[in-house]
Amino acid sequence: MPSFFPAALENLIDRFAALPGIGRKSAQRLAFYVLSLPEEEAAAFAEAVLEAKRDVHTCPVCQNLTDGDLCAVCASLSRDRTTICGVSEPRDVLSIERSREYRGLYHVLHGALSPMNHVGPDDLRIRELVDRVAQGDVAEVILATNPDTEGDATAMYVSRLLRPFGVKVTRLGFGVPVGSNLEYADDATLLRALEGRREM
Amino acid sequence: MPSFFPAALENLIDRFAALPGIGRKSAQRLAFYVLSLPEEEAAAFAEAVLEAKRDVHTCPVCQNLTDGDLCAVCASLSRDRTTICGVSEPRDVLSIERSREYRGLYHVLHGALSPMNHVGPDDLRIRELVDRVAQGDVAEVILATNPDTEGDATAMYVSRLLRPFGVKVTRLGFGVPVGSNLEYADDATLLRALEGRREM
Repeated sequence: MPSFFPAALENLIDRFAALPGIGRKSAQRLAFYVLSLPEEEAAAFAEAVLEAKRDVHTCPVCQNLTDGDLCAVCASLSRDRTTICGVSEPRDVLSIERSREYRGLYHVLHGALSPMNHVGPDDLRIRELVDRVAQGDVAEVILATNPDTEGDATAMYVSRLLRPFGVKVTRLGFGVPVGSNLEYADDATLLRALEGRREM
Repeated sequence: MPSFFPAALENLIDRFAALPGIGRKSAQRLAFYVLSLPEEEAAAFAEAVLEAKRDVHTCPVCQNLTDGDLCAVCASLSRDRTTICGVSEPRDVLSIERSREYRGLYHVLHGALSPMNHVGPDDLRIRELVDRVAQGDVAEVILATNPDTEGDATAMYVSRLLRPFGVKVTRLGFGVPVGSNLEYADDATLLRALEGRREM
């Protein structure tokens, strides 16, 4: 059977199929869609890829993604500079901000420790966090890594490194999600919720 | 709440989110993935979009996508030039080819009639099919549009246009899919399967 899609189309399908969570059929659909776009919109799509790659880099302080010298949070004068919230990924910053409660700074670790996937401490931005704490203005570091094995291990590892500096290190509270149903809560979550119970 | 992603990243997320079947969260994941790619791979992705758009056009005979003067099927000397299989989309050509049975030519209509979505006969490549049949070498046109309302309407419309040329017009057989279970076949399919029963 000869190849029925032109080489340039096959190549575009391959590129889409290499993206995470995109299967072969979806990649075909996306490629056909791009072909159906007006010339200037397809060009704008390509330009968006190049521009994001060119303009976006990590903030030298908190390691979050930014296109400026500092990210918006680090540059803001209204944030509490004595608290740092450590998260795994840039998108987690958005999640914490959505709570509209947190007014401190962030530190993006860019991953979580995972020996299985050969991700060690040197692959994360842990040293940068220790350096910030070592400068002395930080009172508390809230570790908001994911509540899974890798997130737990990362939080544990980082908290040990920070202990010598006498800084308070906390972790996000675990428990049953608000609005959920106890009947469907898994055992591990219920156990954590019991451990984390509060007086009323 | 200020925007927490740099403008170039927001723009890339928007571009991905505009693709069919890609929601906001998926678009974020794809954009972060592109940012994590090595410089040259991100550039190759952008180039793949531009190249596909530049190199791929429709075959002047069958309207399938190609990067040559004619598509591979129309250019082949081993295909039966008296039979044309009419399909809605370029990807449908691949489906028919997978059967390894069909040796005729194709005609890609690029859609199906859909008054609800303002798709009329002039939006499809129907005239091009009529022109091919009018040239006189065609003995049979197999209409392989989708077995849904729009595919039915398109097949009906095209068959009426082709009738004056005395060409044989057929439609793909309907029925229960091979390997499926009667218990789960829907009523419409069973009705069509009964109508299309064959002597053993």
